[in-house]
Amino acid sequence: MTDAKAAQYGVPLQSEDFNEWYNQVVIKADLADYSPVRGCMVVKPYGYAVWERINRDMEDAFRATGHEGLLFPTLIPMNFITKEADHVEGFAPELFTVTKIGTEVLEEPYVMRPTSETIIGHMWAQWLNSYRDLPFLHYQAGAVFRAELRTKLFLRTAEFYWQEGHTAHENEGEARAEVLQQLDLYHRYSRDVLALPVIRGRKTDSERFAGAVETYSIEGMMRDGKALQSGTSHYLGQNFAKAFEVKFQGRDQKEHYVHTTSWAISSRIIGAIIMTHGDDKGLRLPPRIAPVQVVIVPITRKDNTEAMYAAADELAAELASAGHRVRVDKREGVSNGFKYNDWELKGVPVRIELGPRDLEASVVVVKDRDSDAKETVSRADVVAHMQARLERIQQALYDRALDFLEENTVTVDTYDDFKAAIEAGKWVRAFHCGDPESEKQIAEETKAKTRNVPMDDELFGEPEEGVCVHTGKPSAYGKRVIFGRQY
Amino acid sequence: MTDAKAAQYGVPLQSEDFNEWYNQVVIKADLADYSPVRGCMVVKPYGYAVWERINRDMEDAFRATGHEGLLFPTLIPMNFITKEADHVEGFAPELFTVTKIGTEVLEEPYVMRPTSETIIGHMWAQWLNSYRDLPFLHYQAGAVFRAELRTKLFLRTAEFYWQEGHTAHENEGEARAEVLQQLDLYHRYSRDVLALPVIRGRKTDSERFAGAVETYSIEGMMRDGKALQSGTSHYLGQNFAKAFEVKFQGRDQKEHYVHTTSWAISSRIIGAIIMTHGDDKGLRLPPRIAPVQVVIVPITRKDNTEAMYAAADELAAELASAGHRVRVDKREGVSNGFKYNDWELKGVPVRIELGPRDLEASVVVVKDRDSDAKETVSRADVVAHMQARLERIQQALYDRALDFLEENTVTVDTYDDFKAAIEAGKWVRAFHCGDPESEKQIAEETKAKTRNVPMDDELFGEPEEGVCVHTGKPSAYGKRVIFGRQY
Repeated sequence: MTDAKAAQYGVPLQSEDFNEWYNQVVIKADLADYSPVRGCMVVKPYGYAVWERINRDMEDAFRATGHEGLLFPTLIPMNFITKEADHVEGFAPELFTVTKIGTEVLEEPYVMRPTSETIIGHMWAQWLNSYRDLPFLHYQAGAVFRAELRTKLFLRTAEFYWQEGHTAHENEGEARAEVLQQLDLYHRYSRDVLALPVIRGRKTDSERFAGAVETYSIEGMMRDGKALQSGTSHYLGQNFAKAFEVKFQGRDQKEHYVHTTSWAISSRIIGAIIMTHGDDKGLRLPPRIAPVQVVIVPITRKDNTEAMYAAADELAAELASAGHRVRVDKREGVSNGFKYNDWELKGVPVRIELGPRDLEASVVVVKDRDSDAKETVSRADVVAHMQARLERIQQALYDRALDFLEENTVTVDTYDDFKAAIEAGKWVRAFHCGDPESEKQIAEETKAKTRNVPMDDELFGEPEEGVCVHTGKPSAYGKRVIFGRQY
Repeated sequence: MTDAKAAQYGVPLQSEDFNEWYNQVVIKADLADYSPVRGCMVVKPYGYAVWERINRDMEDAFRATGHEGLLFPTLIPMNFITKEADHVEGFAPELFTVTKIGTEVLEEPYVMRPTSETIIGHMWAQWLNSYRDLPFLHYQAGAVFRAELRTKLFLRTAEFYWQEGHTAHENEGEARAEVLQQLDLYHRYSRDVLALPVIRGRKTDSERFAGAVETYSIEGMMRDGKALQSGTSHYLGQNFAKAFEVKFQGRDQKEHYVHTTSWAISSRIIGAIIMTHGDDKGLRLPPRIAPVQVVIVPITRKDNTEAMYAAADELAAELASAGHRVRVDKREGVSNGFKYNDWELKGVPVRIELGPRDLEASVVVVKDRDSDAKETVSRADVVAHMQARLERIQQALYDRALDFLEENTVTVDTYDDFKAAIEAGKWVRAFHCGDPESEKQIAEETKAKTRNVPMDDELFGEPEEGVCVHTGKPSAYGKRVIFGRQY
C-alpha cells in the first residue's frame, strides 16, 4: 500500500507503527474514546454493540449450564480485601477508595471492586447450610476498577467490563471440573465466534491470580507478536472459603469448607479482536460478532435518490429477514469513496454497491472487506448466497490468524536462540525448570514471561522431556512452556 | 386467611403489616438480600432474572427507535457535578466520593455517578460539530449511586440499576417529542408486560428533576395506596448544553446549543411489581415477566422417582418448545406442600402437579397462582392451552390493579375531604394553584405530594376548571392534579 493510500484510511500502517495504528483504529472506527476520568474510557456505540453481543452470548451460555446471575454491590468494605493475604497484596496498589458519603467521612472506607471474590464469599457464608445447597453457580456481569498507570483503550483501562463467574462446590474434583468447563467455553467461543485461535493452558506459579491455587488461561497472539491473555479460569481451593468462613454440613454430618472457582473474559477481548484481525485498512470484524455484517451503499444522483434508497431498503429488509445485520448508508454530503473507506476502516465484512445501472440490470456489486475484487451478483441470488459468503469470511479470518500464530511460534533449546526469537517478536516454546526466580530473570532480560503450559490436547501441548532453556535443570512440566512478550 | 395459614407461607399478612410483608416477601421469595455495604442490596438470581429481562426488553426497544448504547465511566470529576447549579444542589448530599487511588490522595476527587448528564454533556461537546451529527440518541445500562438514609430493598438502595437515556437535538420540538415518545414506551411496557396500570403525566414545578425544564412521570399505586414513581422522562432544555458547552453549527451557519432529554426506569420497578400484584401468599408475577411461568411438581414415591421425573421433563420440554419458561421441581427432602407454598410465594403463575395416577390416566392437575381451584386437564391438551391460560392471568392481574387504582382514587373539592382521603390511604384528585409554597405546606400537613398532572388522553386527565383545594386560587393546570403519599 502506498503512503497516499494509507492516508486515505486515516490510520498509520500497521506494519510501521503497530501501537499508533491500534490507537487510531479504535478512535477512528468509533469503538471508544478517552474520558476525563483518569485511566477510564468511553465505549462508543459501535464498540458497545460488539461488547453487548459478547455479554449476551456469555450470559446465555452460562445459564445453559445452570449458572445464575446476581448483582453484588460495586463497593466492598476495605477490611474484606485484606482478609485473603495474597489477594490484598495483588490488588492494594490499584484500589479506588471511597472515603466520603455526602459530607460524612467514613470510619471504614469502601473500595470499588477490583473483583468480587471477597464480598461474594461473605454472602455465601450467610446463604450456605448444607451440601444440598451446593453447588453455587453464580456470575455477575458488570464493571470492575483497577488503577492503571498507562491507559490503552480496551486493553488497559481503570474501569473495564466483564462477567465474573464464581462457583462453590462440595469437593475439589467438582470445582476443578468447573474450572476446565468454563475454560473450554472461553476457548470455543473465541475460536467459533470471535475467530481467535487461542492456546488453552495452565499458568505457571508466578503468573497465578492473587489468591488462586491454580490459574488457567487462553492466550492469543496479536499481529505484533505480543500475547494477550484473553480469559482466565481459577481454582481457588479453600483460600477464600477459609477467609470468609464459607462452610457447610456435609454428607458425613461434619462441617467442611467449600472449594471455589472464579473465571472471566473481559472487554479486553475487543482489543484481541482488533489486534488479531486488523490490517492496514483498519478493523476486520468476524461476521459472527460484527454489529453490521453487510453495508449497502446506494449510488445516488439528485434525481434518483428516493428510488435508490427504496431499492436499498428493500434489499436490506430481505437480508435482515434472512437473519443478517444490515445497514444502508444514506449519509449525505460525503462521497461514495469516503463511505467505502469508512466501512472498511470499521471492518464490516461485506459491502454491497447498488447503482442505477445495476438496478436496471437486476444485479448488485458485492465486495468482501478482505479482497480488492468486486463481484457482480444477480439481485435474485444475493440473499441466498450471503450466508455462505459470511461463513467463508469467518473461516478465512480464523485460518489466517492460526497460520500467523503457528508461523510466529518457534521452538528453541538454547537461551541465545530464546533471546533472539523474543527480540524478533516471536513466541517461544522452551523447556523450563519451574523456578519463579528464573522466570523473573528471564522477564528482566527479555521482557518475555511464561504465557501458559498448553493442555495436552492443545496446539503446542505435546508431552516432551528436556532441560530448562535458562537454568539447565530438568523441565518441570513434561512439555514445553510458551513464553512471549505481552500486553 | 387464618393465622395458621399465613404462617405456612412464612410472611405476615399484607393487609396487617404491609411494610413487613414487603420486606419478607423480597427476602423469602429470594429476590434480593441485604449486603454489608451501607444502603446496598444483593440482587439474587430470581430477582436478577426479572431485572435482566426488563433490561434486555428496554435495550431492544431503545434500539428499535434508533437509540445506541454506550458506556461512560462510573466516576465523574467532582467539578462536573457543580457546573449545573440545580443539579449539584439536588445531588450533593447523596454523593459517594473517591478521594484515593492506591495510596495516592487525589487533588480533584471523583464521585460515583448519581446520574450521567454531566459527563455525557462533556463528551458530547467533543463529538458534536454540525447539525448533521444530530440527534444523539444514547443510552447507558448500568448502576448508579445515591446515598439513602433508610434502605428498602429495590425501592431505596444506595446502588440501583437502570438504563439512563440521554439525547441531544437540534431544536426544542424534536427534544420534546423524544421526551414523550420515551414516556409512552414506559407506559406501554408497564401496562402490557408488567401489568402495571400507571398514570402518565407532567410533574409540577416543585417535583422536577434537578436541572430539568420539565419532568414527566409514570405513577403507579401500590396495594397500601402509596404511589411509586415508576419512570421519568425529562426535557432539560439547554441547561446542561450551556453548562458543558454542547454546541453545533446549525443550518443557518450559526452556533447553537443543543436541546437535551434524559429518561429512565430503574430496578425500583421491581418494587412496583411486588407491591401492585402481591397478596397474602406472597408474590404474583405477570406471566410476561415471570422467570418461571409454569412449575411442574412431580409427585414421587421412592420406587417411581425416575419415571415421574422423566414424565415431568418430557412435559417441560414440550412447554419450552412452545415458548414457555418452565421449571421442574426435583428438590429432595421437602414435601409437596412445601414446594407448592414456595412457588406460590415466588409468584409463579401456573403450577402443574403430575402424579402416577395422573400419568396413567393421561391427565395433569393444573392450578393457577390466582385461584384455589385445581383443574384436571388432558395431558394431550395442556401445551396447546397454556398460552391462553397465561394471557388470561396476565390480563386478570392488570384488571385487578386498575380496579384498585380507580377505587382508591377520590375526587375532592375541600381541604378537609383532601386530608381525610389521604389519611385513609387514597390518592386524591384535586385542583391546585401551582404555588410551590402551597405544595410544601400540603406535604408538611398531610405527607402527600403531587404525583403528576395526567396527560389529556390519560385516565384522570379530563380537562376541567376549578379553584385550588388549598389556597382557593384558580387552578393552574386546566385539570385536577393527583396527590398521594409516596415511596
